[in-house]
Amino acid sequence: MPFLRKGKGILLAYDQGLEHGTSKDFNDKSVDPDYILEIAEKGKFTGVIFQKGVAEKYYKGKIPLIIKVNGKTSLPKGEPIASQICSVKQAKALGAKAVGYTIYLGSAHENLMLHEFGRIQQEAHEMGLAAIAWIYPRGESVVNDTAPEIVAYAARAGLEAGADAVKIKYTGDSNSFRWAVRSAGAVKVFMSGGPKAPTDEAFLTQVKGVMDAGATGLAVGRNVWQHERPLEMAAALREVIMNGQTVETALKKFTR
Amino acid sequence: MPFLRKGKGILLAYDQGLEHGTSKDFNDKSVDPDYILEIAEKGKFTGVIFQKGVAEKYYKGKIPLIIKVNGKTSLPKGEPIASQICSVKQAKALGAKAVGYTIYLGSAHENLMLHEFGRIQQEAHEMGLAAIAWIYPRGESVVNDTAPEIVAYAARAGLEAGADAVKIKYTGDSNSFRWAVRSAGAVKVFMSGGPKAPTDEAFLTQVKGVMDAGATGLAVGRNVWQHERPLEMAAALREVIMNGQTVETALKKFTR
Amino acid sequence: MPFLRKGKGILLAYDQGLEHGTSKDFNDKSVDPDYILEIAEKGKFTGVIFQKGVAEKYYKGKIPLIIKVNGKTSLPKGEPIASQICSVKQAKALGAKAVGYTIYLGSAHENLMLHEFGRIQQEAHEMGLAAIAWIYPRGESVVNDTAPEIVAYAARAGLEAGADAVKIKYTGDSNSFRWAVRSAGAVKVFMSGGPKAPTDEAFLTQVKGVMDAGATGLAVGRNVWQHERPLEMAAALREVIMNGQTVETALKKFTR
Amino acid sequence: MPFLRKGKGILLAYDQGLEHGTSKDFNDKSVDPDYILEIAEKGKFTGVIFQKGVAEKYYKGKIPLIIKVNGKTSLPKGEPIASQICSVKQAKALGAKAVGYTIYLGSAHENLMLHEFGRIQQEAHEMGLAAIAWIYPRGESVVNDTAPEIVAYAARAGLEAGADAVKIKYTGDSNSFRWAVRSAGAVKVFMSGGPKAPTDEAFLTQVKGVMDAGATGLAVGRNVWQHERPLEMAAALREVIMNGQTVETALKKFTR
Amino acid sequence: MPFLRKGKGILLAYDQGLEHGTSKDFNDKSVDPDYILEIAEKGKFTGVIFQKGVAEKYYKGKIPLIIKVNGKTSLPKGEPIASQICSVKQAKALGAKAVGYTIYLGSAHENLMLHEFGRIQQEAHEMGLAAIAWIYPRGESVVNDTAPEIVAYAARAGLEAGADAVKIKYTGDSNSFRWAVRSAGAVKVFMSGGPKAPTDEAFLTQVKGVMDAGATGLAVGRNVWQHERPLEMAAALREVIMNGQTVETALKKFTR
Repeated sequence: MPFLRKGKGILLAYDQGLEHGTSKDFNDKSVDPDYILEIAEKGKFTGVIFQKGVAEKYYKGKIPLIIKVNGKTSLPKGEPIASQICSVKQAKALGAKAVGYTIYLGSAHENLMLHEFGRIQQEAHEMGLAAIAWIYPRGESVVNDTAPEIVAYAARAGLEAGADAVKIKYTGDSNSFRWAVRSAGAVKVFMSGGPKAPTDEAFLTQVKGVMDAGATGLAVGRNVWQHERPLEMAAALREVIMNGQTVETALKKFTR
Repeated sequence: MPFLRKGKGILLAYDQGLEHGTSKDFNDKSVDPDYILEIAEKGKFTGVIFQKGVAEKYYKGKIPLIIKVNGKTSLPKGEPIASQICSVKQAKALGAKAVGYTIYLGSAHENLMLHEFGRIQQEAHEMGLAAIAWIYPRGESVVNDTAPEIVAYAARAGLEAGADAVKIKYTGDSNSFRWAVRSAGAVKVFMSGGPKAPTDEAFLTQVKGVMDAGATGLAVGRNVWQHERPLEMAAALREVIMNGQTVETALKKFTR
Repeated sequence: MPFLRKGKGILLAYDQGLEHGTSKDFNDKSVDPDYILEIAEKGKFTGVIFQKGVAEKYYKGKIPLIIKVNGKTSLPKGEPIASQICSVKQAKALGAKAVGYTIYLGSAHENLMLHEFGRIQQEAHEMGLAAIAWIYPRGESVVNDTAPEIVAYAARAGLEAGADAVKIKYTGDSNSFRWAVRSAGAVKVFMSGGPKAPTDEAFLTQVKGVMDAGATGLAVGRNVWQHERPLEMAAALREVIMNGQTVETALKKFTR
Repeated sequence: MPFLRKGKGILLAYDQGLEHGTSKDFNDKSVDPDYILEIAEKGKFTGVIFQKGVAEKYYKGKIPLIIKVNGKTSLPKGEPIASQICSVKQAKALGAKAVGYTIYLGSAHENLMLHEFGRIQQEAHEMGLAAIAWIYPRGESVVNDTAPEIVAYAARAGLEAGADAVKIKYTGDSNSFRWAVRSAGAVKVFMSGGPKAPTDEAFLTQVKGVMDAGATGLAVGRNVWQHERPLEMAAALREVIMNGQTVETALKKFTR
Repeated sequence: MPFLRKGKGILLAYDQGLEHGTSKDFNDKSVDPDYILEIAEKGKFTGVIFQKGVAEKYYKGKIPLIIKVNGKTSLPKGEPIASQICSVKQAKALGAKAVGYTIYLGSAHENLMLHEFGRIQQEAHEMGLAAIAWIYPRGESVVNDTAPEIVAYAARAGLEAGADAVKIKYTGDSNSFRWAVRSAGAVKVFMSGGPKAPTDEAFLTQVKGVMDAGATGLAVGRNVWQHERPLEMAAALREVIMNGQTVETALKKFTR
């Protein structure tokens, strides 16, 4: 897959503008897609994740592009649903190597998203693109979206529905996350970075746990571009993900 | 039909990862589709049932493939609905000889599933595939989904809607199941294996009752791949289903 | 129209397996579509009405075929809706001379059915098939579905929406049914046979009232194939419908 | 526009069979479409309005035909919606010069009807047909559907959405209706005839008020074909609409 | 973009007839699209915004045309939704250089509008038209639609979804609006004019604040064509928007 390097991947996610708004997640630097592209390039990320509008206006072709083809804002209440905004054809025309799609597993609208992802996955494969599923259990019927059995369910739903890779939340410990990776089978597993962790060590320890569990890598946004030293964080992540180093070794990237 | 042998069929079902999750149904062995394919082959099953993702990544062409083209998780509450995830065209491209589709009869969304199955059945027949209907009465209006008249209704709905085969629950006794088989008319009837039975004898007795009622066979998952000796169970099932042997004879497969 | 003889029609309806289930309406003989086809042929019916699955597996071409292209079970509660299961193209390929479609007039989903029927009617006419509308006022807003003004409304809705024939319920007396026939204008009116009548005389008297009101004929199921002497009932119906005989004369068919 | 004469129009509307049923609006004569066609021809109407079924079975080509392409019965409760029953292509094939479509402005389903009308309008124009919008504010959010500002809103919505002509209710006085005509701009305004007026003078006075306000004409049904002397009423309407005569002059048509 | 001049834009918006009705916003002059076209031309606006019906019947090609392709009335209660009324193909045929589409961010139907805009944006770009998004946070979940973080969210959603320009509400001060402009990135930002301001100075001060924040311009309706001296207001707006003049200088346009 074109967004992996030596079978591992560190994807820089940047669709938070749609998902959370700009005032919550961005500052004057991170609000600018060019700043993110610079980090992606200098930080040697294996891919960058944009909605189609950002791709159309900013992407310059240096990093493998993943277009997130559905999305929603954080505003509506009720059972979550995100519908297709970008066609696979348009994603390809914008240079994408893969499409990303969020399925809110357990939502009352789950069937619409499984259906839409199914069609998108077929189109993507027919056009030579990979299909990545963000699988987030959510809705009234989901009590705890990081419970090990729920995360494993999410991973497996990705395999069953035809995803080439899944982006799922961390369970909190490597052992239980291993079962999620095992449930995903031949599907590449990426941990969803989530909100900024309290310390670098805390975040890298999570990532280490994910990799120890057999995952392929990480899709990360806020923990990199909200960081004061994003390139050092990128380097540290590469140590853990690409080079299989310890957290201790990785943390040295910040001491230079 | 390519998933029958001598007019009988034993199908190995393996879409539980999507329907129930991995933590409830699988262990470290059964979570692996390769393990299931090995059982299917060595156990001489007449077909294997996968969602498209599992087929795409694991299927190697040795056993007739049935792709389940819709599905849902067990998470959402409310009236059940499962929508199409895999197109008939894609199922065929993946090597399927038949497509499977679940209709939740009695659901408030029944009409959407009857409509979608109707279209899929036409496409399947135009492309030379069989169409199998999983017909599960479910929803607020269904009190008892194994009541003889409800199971017979399910079987008949399969005939009316154009299914070539139906997968239905057992009524609990051979005599009442005979009416379901009779209601299905020219449609092949498969019993849905259901959760692991308390004893081998109990399960084989069910299967014997089903075959005595005139059914074509069994679609079984958990009672095989959750079994400590899956190949012996497969052999025992062949005795009952293919060879018309008694439960007593079949049980000898476990004593070797 | 190919399902009329001398301008009159007696259609043998057999979609009750989907609409009501098999346990309520069928016995061991009537559950078998071949039994119904035999009655249709020997009883000289002018047409037989099947869902596509029954047509596909049983129809042998001897009697003009009408395929019911939508349908529902009796299980779901709430406002009634039946969606298309069989395409017009497929109905034609299966040998149908006409398609039948149920519109639940007054249902909260009335607009979806009027819309779908409208499209089906156009396709049918373009392919040389007749379009028959089953028009059943039903739903929370319908108090009495056999009130004369409601039955006349149903008949008229069939004319307005483009039906070539309508199947409607009897109002209970010939005089008020005449207004329904008049409301249907150039559209052929068939009485819906309904559940088994208490006596042959009672049923034939209804049919006589329908024909006296100017109707084209009858679509009948249970009053024929639940009858102990279905061919005699068929002969009696022919007397009333085709030959314009009295109920008294028709009843002599049973005394032979 | 082919349904105008000297820039004015008197359209004979006859879709009440679907909208209201036959028992409420029709008698033994007016239930017959041939009777209406005779009135349309002898009464020199500039157009006749039918649903597709009536057009298909009765229309003989002598009067410009407008096919109403959506419709509903009066039975369902809840927010009003009427969906497309006849395609523009089919309307044209049946000889229509224009299509008519009802939009229930203010309904919770308003968006579906504005969307459907938008597509129909484009198709109509591409095929050389005019598009007429029946714009009826209705639903829980509409308190008074003949309030001047609501009628003007309806007229304007017709202009904005691309109608060539609108059919709207009378506000009750010529002065306030002038604002509705003005709001419609280049769109031809037809008053909707409504239920039978208490006296001929009352009805003609309404029509006079409408014409004085600058309208193009009238779409009338019940006030003509429920009239004992429909041709005299037609003649009287022509006096007011075509010849600009007073109500007094027009009423003389009844004294001959 | 063809609706800019020297990189700035003043668009004359005139879809209020559909959005608000004619009685609330228009007088006898402003109800007439020709009056608006005259203002647009003489006032040197860089574009005019019409629904398709107004464009079809009034547009004469002198000013760049933007067709608003969805819309709704102010009548329905409940979560807001506006669906497509004009196709991109039709907009282009009518001479449009851009299409406009409203997304009610935060509405329970947000996903339908994001999806529809996504498709329209692709079609527009394929046909060489720009896609402008009116992004209005609205619905039960939106407390304050001019709060800075909500306006910035709206601007960003436009960027993410692929808009070339967004029309958003003013936050009330230039400083907080700057963040919205920054959030929009490469997307052109137009302030939505809104209802008639109490004084010319008040309105021009708003516009000045918008331009100081880095916006591209203004889409204005009521503040121009409800003005007694619309051409003077247009001239004053040009001073502020095109020439970067102060409010004081701009106000001199009214003193001539």
